[in-house]
Amino acid sequence: MTPPVPRTLLLSPADLRAIVDGVGLHALMDELIQTLTTALRELDASVTEVHKREGFALKNELRPPGALEWMPVLRRGETMTMKVVGYAPANAADAGLPTIIATNSVYDARTGHLLALMDGVFATALRTGAASAVASRCLAAPDSRVLGLVGCGAQAVTQLHALSRVFRLEQVLVHDVNPEAARSFVRRVAFLGLDVRPTLLSDLEARADILCTATTVGVGAGPVISGHALQPHAHINAVGSDLPGKTELPLALLRRSLVCPDFPSQARVEGECQQLHPDQIGPDLATVVQQPEEFQGWRLRNTVFDSTGHALEDQVVTRMLLEHARRMQLGTYVSVEGLGGDPLDPYALMRGDAPGRTEAPRRAAGS
Amino acid sequence: MTPPVPRTLLLSPADLRAIVDGVGLHALMDELIQTLTTALRELDASVTEVHKREGFALKNELRPPGALEWMPVLRRGETMTMKVVGYAPANAADAGLPTIIATNSVYDARTGHLLALMDGVFATALRTGAASAVASRCLAAPDSRVLGLVGCGAQAVTQLHALSRVFRLEQVLVHDVNPEAARSFVRRVAFLGLDVRPTLLSDLEARADILCTATTVGVGAGPVISGHALQPHAHINAVGSDLPGKTELPLALLRRSLVCPDFPSQARVEGECQQLHPDQIGPDLATVVQQPEEFQGWRLRNTVFDSTGHALEDQVVTRMLLEHARRMQLGTYVSVEGLGGDPLDPYALMRGDAPGRTEAPRRAAGS
Repeated sequence: MTPPVPRTLLLSPADLRAIVDGVGLHALMDELIQTLTTALRELDASVTEVHKREGFALKNELRPPGALEWMPVLRRGETMTMKVVGYAPANAADAGLPTIIATNSVYDARTGHLLALMDGVFATALRTGAASAVASRCLAAPDSRVLGLVGCGAQAVTQLHALSRVFRLEQVLVHDVNPEAARSFVRRVAFLGLDVRPTLLSDLEARADILCTATTVGVGAGPVISGHALQPHAHINAVGSDLPGKTELPLALLRRSLVCPDFPSQARVEGECQQLHPDQIGPDLATVVQQPEEFQGWRLRNTVFDSTGHALEDQVVTRMLLEHARRMQLGTYVSVEGLGGDPLDPYALMRGDAPGRTEAPRRAAGS
Repeated sequence: MTPPVPRTLLLSPADLRAIVDGVGLHALMDELIQTLTTALRELDASVTEVHKREGFALKNELRPPGALEWMPVLRRGETMTMKVVGYAPANAADAGLPTIIATNSVYDARTGHLLALMDGVFATALRTGAASAVASRCLAAPDSRVLGLVGCGAQAVTQLHALSRVFRLEQVLVHDVNPEAARSFVRRVAFLGLDVRPTLLSDLEARADILCTATTVGVGAGPVISGHALQPHAHINAVGSDLPGKTELPLALLRRSLVCPDFPSQARVEGECQQLHPDQIGPDLATVVQQPEEFQGWRLRNTVFDSTGHALEDQVVTRMLLEHARRMQLGTYVSVEGLGGDPLDPYALMRGDAPGRTEAPRRAAGS
């Protein structure tokens, strides 16, 4: 008997929406925070191999610089997850599109077959929020009540959502160089039922127990906070660094803080760690998650999570969404690669006697 | 007016088949050889930026080593073409699948949006054949009549097809360590109407004007030809080198030949050029195409095209197939990324008032 021809599971935004409807946004975020914590705790280089993000710089005289990048991660003997991600700060103004557009693909690590393809816009925001929650749970004061958000774009939504799941937030102070973004943010996060207030940056800095910086500040134009009057215990999730030369935090703050990168070799190129000597860089997030008691003393001092975005996070969120999709029989199976003919004949499917010529996409439930 | 939400053009194998039906396989190969020649002649680093192939080595005690790799190429300000390609020599025996499985994606280099996704199995075989035709037209004796193929797998089919389009082949001598592959090859290429004969390797080496090596020889197990009794003018397309340590040609042959890599920095890591000192490596294929008269004297001496596979070739074949698909209104538009909501709200499409919830895939002709 010939084995069935492998197809590709395509998850559309409507399928992700059905997952959110079925599971609930809070439950999904909670699950992701827990799954990511477990993945970091059990991270084993003999099983999981991560490539540092690489990409093309997108330069254009008329637009702020961006990048088009790829983030591959291998789960040995099982799958490779590959996110391709564009960072284009002009997207919203130019085309009404998100600054970060991404697609997540999963390949069979035994054959090379594309197993699944899905949106990475929602998934990236979700996992970036979850990563800050994981880091803050280890490094911020446990009774943190005031969150300060610097930059009120798409990523700020999930920073707040994720942190609201692990801290009892009483007040959320928000600031954006574009006041309209800060105002619209209040509406965007109304579903959380929290006290969210556009605030002067100096007040935000002085009062926040936890800060998140998630801005599109230009290369060389940082920092985005002064760092002068922070709470002595303030923890900062620095989310916006993702290009060489793009940093958000002042050097003096980094020097007095425990700086924990998500992925050290990448953070030294693209993150806040660009500003530091290697011996000024603290443990990576996986180490902090694995040995929380080692770093407990830092909860009352300044700490920084240098979040450049780790392919492991993409692997974890992609697996989670795919598992829900499979359980709920969501998605559409499509033929992408020319498989199913004579494997020694690249023209086999192109000739008169080829099978599968008129296959239509097939809903997952029917397969 | 809001701009339309960008969607993704999915080309299935059936769509590629319709292109082949409409254009003809010979015309398609002729067009690709011509388009690739032009692309190499006009190659401009300020427009086209190519990343060397990188990837994960796939090691498993039970199987020959393989790789899962990515090959990105940017056309500045327009598109990024990204091929993800698996090389898994056990695929045919294990799962009835091709050794090389690939998918080709095209991203908008301004926004990061996935414009198109298609099969890379057919496209890879097609462009690898075309590259050998381009190289052979510059480096082989113009009146070459006898082609020798060492390795009779999938890639050999398009090596023969492409070379048959640019030389008047009178005889094709084929050899494979698996005699059944050589026998079935005769059937697979019957559509060409050529005189194709399974042959002893020594006879093949002694008689061929042009040779192609396209084998799955193991790392460290090469060479696959002796190189002792070759014609003094023989040109070799070495197609199989694609892993560190995997080479097909004897060092003595390389040393006496003009060795032209497709992509020097990659060929020094994965190609026949691994065996050479940098000063023993000849001009790259683009240089040969741009200055054919410079290298004309080599047509009567031994020459080697070190074909590791160049992302530029993937860009060219992908563009060609997409242009035919658009002209013929083939393919299906699908929603992959979560676009079309508030660009500052990653949850916008996940909530009750979200548009586009039940969109079905849409055939290209209807859009």
